[in-house]
Amino acid sequence: MDQTVFQNLRHQSVGDLRLVIREGSYTGHTAGLGAGMLQANLVILPQDYALDFMRFCQRNPKPCPLVGVSDTGDAMMRTLGRDIDIRTDVPAYNIYRDGKLSAETMDISDLWRDDLVSFALGCSFTFEHAAIAAGIQLWHIDNNTTVPMFRTNILTVPAGPFEGPLVVSMRAIPEDQVDLAVEISRKFPLAHGAPIHIGDPAEIGVADVTRPDWGDPAPVPEGSVPVFWACGVTPQVALEAAKAPLCITHKPGHMLVTDVPQDAENPVLRPST
Amino acid sequence: MDQTVFQNLRHQSVGDLRLVIREGSYTGHTAGLGAGMLQANLVILPQDYALDFMRFCQRNPKPCPLVGVSDTGDAMMRTLGRDIDIRTDVPAYNIYRDGKLSAETMDISDLWRDDLVSFALGCSFTFEHAAIAAGIQLWHIDNNTTVPMFRTNILTVPAGPFEGPLVVSMRAIPEDQVDLAVEISRKFPLAHGAPIHIGDPAEIGVADVTRPDWGDPAPVPEGSVPVFWACGVTPQVALEAAKAPLCITHKPGHMLVTDVPQDAENPVLRPST
Repeated sequence: MDQTVFQNLRHQSVGDLRLVIREGSYTGHTAGLGAGMLQANLVILPQDYALDFMRFCQRNPKPCPLVGVSDTGDAMMRTLGRDIDIRTDVPAYNIYRDGKLSAETMDISDLWRDDLVSFALGCSFTFEHAAIAAGIQLWHIDNNTTVPMFRTNILTVPAGPFEGPLVVSMRAIPEDQVDLAVEISRKFPLAHGAPIHIGDPAEIGVADVTRPDWGDPAPVPEGSVPVFWACGVTPQVALEAAKAPLCITHKPGHMLVTDVPQDAENPVLRPST
Repeated sequence: MDQTVFQNLRHQSVGDLRLVIREGSYTGHTAGLGAGMLQANLVILPQDYALDFMRFCQRNPKPCPLVGVSDTGDAMMRTLGRDIDIRTDVPAYNIYRDGKLSAETMDISDLWRDDLVSFALGCSFTFEHAAIAAGIQLWHIDNNTTVPMFRTNILTVPAGPFEGPLVVSMRAIPEDQVDLAVEISRKFPLAHGAPIHIGDPAEIGVADVTRPDWGDPAPVPEGSVPVFWACGVTPQVALEAAKAPLCITHKPGHMLVTDVPQDAENPVLRPST
């Protein structure tokens, strides 16, 4: 990915950005793009699994904040924006078969079926933007790495075949900014809301805070506190447990960029039919 | 209903209150009972309708804030409290067949089937408690009447067979307390959140604010403003449109009282298996 192209994309409308992605001209991550608009994790499942997956999201709203659900077999995400074709408008997809990652692709048109249902789940980009705007420095962003993520000893509330541990992301926050970080993130329930734990990693089953299960390591400097938020990798682990014959997700970091303002009280736009 | 019994119930725990209801010893409304705990509207549908109804709730979160969903065929609402049997623990039920109200009953044990799914939706009692605590007087409560409700010209976002107008409740708020009422209700997204309209009723298709479509009339005194919130009657109208062969709801005002604190960040309790 050419850095100049990325810089140009930053100044495009979300509609134009999605068109560039649809044409296959951009297949990179979406952090920093679509400024001010909600970005979302994507999960596509056969309808046989859809009701249980919606129950799983309802029962685990902090890791799985549901922001949109398609009609069965409809490739358009009609409540999240104008002309969002879920088969082409995400930069990169992961294909799971029987719970195992089997392929990565930039377009899922050839995999689309009449029984598929698409789910969009809120992601942490939203509160990170707000935190940075409030003067909180985030190490992984300043250093262009992926936020460290950890499997915890907290279990999700299961639904049908969907179950597993809560996964959290960790951001080291200066002691005197912890209250501010909590206050800001609490305002964004669709971006995982307030932290689920502040302080001693061992209390939530994290043995070594410098060795994440996913993402890149990040330091916890003297004077900073490790703060843990529910993470969108949680549903991915539950999807692996469910072993659906087919499941399609976005490739991590390569999100669906919507037309919904990230500070919207609710994420539903009236479809233009 | 004897007023002394009601006064006694006010001092019972929610668990004891539900037992009294389960035994059939109390069949009245639940306003003012179960202090501090979330109360919920109830919708029970065959599984064939469940996925579309969940989509309808996701697409219309202000009138239909989903707080709990049972497993298919499971009569227990496991994420809303300890030992909640949905067949017996609501004071009174309405039975709809093909979209038409066909009966009222105090116990649905004989109607229970293996394919039924129960949905609990947040209700306005939560924000009314908070508004009163903040010094806002609510006429319908002071006068022991039902809040006035109106059909609007705003359409819900449909899902499958579920569709219809947004229904709103109206509370006349003194001009100098409108901002406060907005601020308080916004804090309770599971109790319909912030108002959908403030002021001129005609703008949302309400021709005469003194003649509600449901509930009792309430005055809008000089110096007060009519404020309209999304209302839990909205899904009821959508259910009538969907014409499911069987649908069971609570009788209006006769809510499910849960073990979830009404100011909880999310309404899901970990089931004790």
